[in-house]
Amino acid sequence: MGILVVGSVAFDSVETPFGVVEEVLGGSATYFATAASYFTDVSLVAVVGGDFPEEHADFLRSRNIDLRGLVRNPGDTFRWKGRYGYDLNEAQTLETRLNVFESFKPSIPPEYADADFVFLANIDPDLQMEVLRQVNKPRIIASDTMNFWISSKPEALKKVIGKVDILIINDAEARQLSREPNLVKSARMILSLGVKTLIVKRGEYGVLMFAGNSIFAAPAYPLEKVFDPTGAGDTFAGGFIGYLANTGNLTDAGIRQAIIFGSVMASFTVEDFSLNRIKSLDYREIEERYRGFKAMTHFEDIPEPE
Amino acid sequence: MGILVVGSVAFDSVETPFGVVEEVLGGSATYFATAASYFTDVSLVAVVGGDFPEEHADFLRSRNIDLRGLVRNPGDTFRWKGRYGYDLNEAQTLETRLNVFESFKPSIPPEYADADFVFLANIDPDLQMEVLRQVNKPRIIASDTMNFWISSKPEALKKVIGKVDILIINDAEARQLSREPNLVKSARMILSLGVKTLIVKRGEYGVLMFAGNSIFAAPAYPLEKVFDPTGAGDTFAGGFIGYLANTGNLTDAGIRQAIIFGSVMASFTVEDFSLNRIKSLDYREIEERYRGFKAMTHFEDIPEPE
Repeated sequence: MGILVVGSVAFDSVETPFGVVEEVLGGSATYFATAASYFTDVSLVAVVGGDFPEEHADFLRSRNIDLRGLVRNPGDTFRWKGRYGYDLNEAQTLETRLNVFESFKPSIPPEYADADFVFLANIDPDLQMEVLRQVNKPRIIASDTMNFWISSKPEALKKVIGKVDILIINDAEARQLSREPNLVKSARMILSLGVKTLIVKRGEYGVLMFAGNSIFAAPAYPLEKVFDPTGAGDTFAGGFIGYLANTGNLTDAGIRQAIIFGSVMASFTVEDFSLNRIKSLDYREIEERYRGFKAMTHFEDIPEPE
Repeated sequence: MGILVVGSVAFDSVETPFGVVEEVLGGSATYFATAASYFTDVSLVAVVGGDFPEEHADFLRSRNIDLRGLVRNPGDTFRWKGRYGYDLNEAQTLETRLNVFESFKPSIPPEYADADFVFLANIDPDLQMEVLRQVNKPRIIASDTMNFWISSKPEALKKVIGKVDILIINDAEARQLSREPNLVKSARMILSLGVKTLIVKRGEYGVLMFAGNSIFAAPAYPLEKVFDPTGAGDTFAGGFIGYLANTGNLTDAGIRQAIIFGSVMASFTVEDFSLNRIKSLDYREIEERYRGFKAMTHFEDIPEPE
């Protein structure tokens, strides 16, 4: 089954303790689509400026990503500049230039409207709702958001969340959205908004999933080289939704496997700047790291009580 | 097999967002011994003052903890006063009065010297070494330490660590000890000091184990009520070493199960102040929560490559 993703395509300038890059390919839709492309067909809706080089579009096409929804408008592409210290969990934003993204109004090509899976990356909740009006009953709607929208457009955001099956946010966002410091209570409040599955991303500590009475904890992969965490969250979402769309298995067991595939993709992303590491993975590498997650988390059960 | 623990017995005054307690029973050896007592015999070496009430000693004896090594000296018992905010991962120490603990020289009763398992709680590394001189080739030596000893007595500490089989410290301490921000590299450096198994505690994010080429990640149990994190680390160590001593199974699989039992005990501790929650657990509750950890971390493997 195919995925429609709506989000940003951007140029990132990033400084970490391990190096500096200028104006490399980034953006939530870019990371998501590239990760998901290892599992299923992806159609991308986003906007770029006249300065967007054809080689980047060629790369995305080489990953079999459908770019008919990638609009090229007059002006410059969205730019983000950030810095990470040794605590790679938090980025310090140095500069954001929205450029053509400022007036972005997502227009879903008619041939995308029947997508079975829709991922609304972190954009204005009014635009997320605009996307939902243009699609025909997708099987699964998943979305991300950020602190800025939680504080500036809480009502619009809650409306979108009410229509979403899977919400993928980080722990600070979950606490902010629910106004509840305890994560278990926070999750229960968010599920009461209508979300079926809540994924809470915790950076180097992995993710927690809450759905009904099921809780699943997945660690992050302990890496010797964490070069640049940019895009880890969107890559997680891409691997996660990509695997779900590939199998169509929406059971608790299927969702847990998908979470591990998402974690695998995120673990590759952070090993290099931009999309360098996930540009051309071998599917066997992905499966090998999945088995690494299994080895890292496995322990024997104890006998059932008599 | 029995355990010898050497550490502190204290009165804690603790303030959390959920309440306040004054001069309740605490201390590393107390938490450790109580948790371990669910799995095996424990002998405790520590010092208290003349103000230590018999009811506390009676409680420890009721858990079958051997108190022949609990010295009562003239003066007051060790007191610690601390506060936690909503971020329950870090305590703010408001006051430490060492009292009789200041001149504590651990003297191991001869009948303890053959203990198979020795746990050196967080005390001066010179005293930890003093303990090791008084015991006869225990099967396993485990120890804890803290930032204060890492910065003030690094050489003495490294000597102790060179004799330890299992080191149990938190992530900040691992980074400080190795002077390496990356946890995987940090772990490798610490293992090179002679430690066979390194356990890195990460508070609400669980623990990581490093041993040879094996890495094991265990989450913390997501709780709706986290009342007071005091003693969580020592309770973890007590459940962990307690289960190891009970089974004598020191294989990778046995250590992983022991880590889960440690995590179970820590999850009970934080549900109430002092030792209130772990005072009188039913072993079936412990096993039930172990199964909860299994349910929370389980995911299906993928087929092996052909």
